[in-house]
Amino acid sequence: MPLIRIDAIKGRSKDEVRGVLDAAHRAMLAAFKVPQRDRYQIYHEHDAAHVIAEDTGLGIERSANLLIFTVVSRPRDERMKLAFYEGLCAELKSSCGIESSDVIVSIATNSDADWSFGGGRAQFITGEL
Amino acid sequence: MPLIRIDAIKGRSKDEVRGVLDAAHRAMLAAFKVPQRDRYQIYHEHDAAHVIAEDTGLGIERSANLLIFTVVSRPRDERMKLAFYEGLCAELKSSCGIESSDVIVSIATNSDADWSFGGGRAQFITGEL
Amino acid sequence: MPLIRIDAIKGRSKDEVRGVLDAAHRAMLAAFKVPQRDRYQIYHEHDAAHVIAEDTGLGIERSANLLIFTVVSRPRDERMKLAFYEGLCAELKSSCGIESSDVIVSIATNSDADWSFGGGRAQFITGEL
Repeated sequence: MPLIRIDAIKGRSKDEVRGVLDAAHRAMLAAFKVPQRDRYQIYHEHDAAHVIAEDTGLGIERSANLLIFTVVSRPRDERMKLAFYEGLCAELKSSCGIESSDVIVSIATNSDADWSFGGGRAQFITGEL
Repeated sequence: MPLIRIDAIKGRSKDEVRGVLDAAHRAMLAAFKVPQRDRYQIYHEHDAAHVIAEDTGLGIERSANLLIFTVVSRPRDERMKLAFYEGLCAELKSSCGIESSDVIVSIATNSDADWSFGGGRAQFITGEL
Repeated sequence: MPLIRIDAIKGRSKDEVRGVLDAAHRAMLAAFKVPQRDRYQIYHEHDAAHVIAEDTGLGIERSANLLIFTVVSRPRDERMKLAFYEGLCAELKSSCGIESSDVIVSIATNSDADWSFGGGRAQFITGEL
């Protein structure tokens, strides 16, 4: 936890995908202060025609580099979320050359009992985490 | 926002997929009163064997046209949600020939701080939206 | 409802996928006490390089059998969730040979008005369910 789902247009090499995932994880470590191995990421590739991301009138132009991040996490305060948005864009720009205009994020919140990381146990409830 | 994920069985042409996405957006505009360019849609194609949608005993028959819509949005009142279900089915029927028996929707709610539409900023918090 | 999204590494046969879906449904029936036909499941296949699931320091080793379950449901009490985690792992082990170290679950909660199972109606609101 958090679990991060990333929706993207097809076309990145395996190394480029890894770069995106690594950048997202660095941003998560810095903003949410999670443990190093608290890393759960799923990258979905789509045909360009299967993803539409406009801009709610904000004047943001998207490119084929578009990334939509959907994060599920236990509650995080607003400051942490804002830090994640900023840090994610900074990491993606510096290590992958992806512009912040191509980075969309949506976060959803759940709770301690909503996670099992393996073994059929809810580790936030058992005290293992 | 809202972000709409659509899970479907493989087989639609590019134009048919576009028709589904356009119909969903018209329904969203009408029901949730969002701005015209508040459009974020991801269409997932699956093998038929990878999607199972029964009917909780309601007596609804599904076809290969099945569409499962998963919507993430800031809070919307019940009336808006009901209007979306109705309007979505009406739009899909009239413009795509898809029966309402093939339309499943699940909505999840998040909050202002949970969205960044680009630029690393949370536009509902900054006042840009 | 619940809607279960399953993210997995490519490589299972159609029968093996069906086995996973059936096991998950048996676990859901037993833990959440849902009706037999309350079954909504989506199985996503990914390249191995597109899914990263570490262990938050718990010392859990993942294999190519890894399964990440993302469940959306109306509220369920903690006891039901814990029963689902346990039962899911038991079913996957006994019927598919999948170890519990390969089973991750994340649950998100929504409410009655958030579901339409077809026909453009919200069946938990109309009284049909």
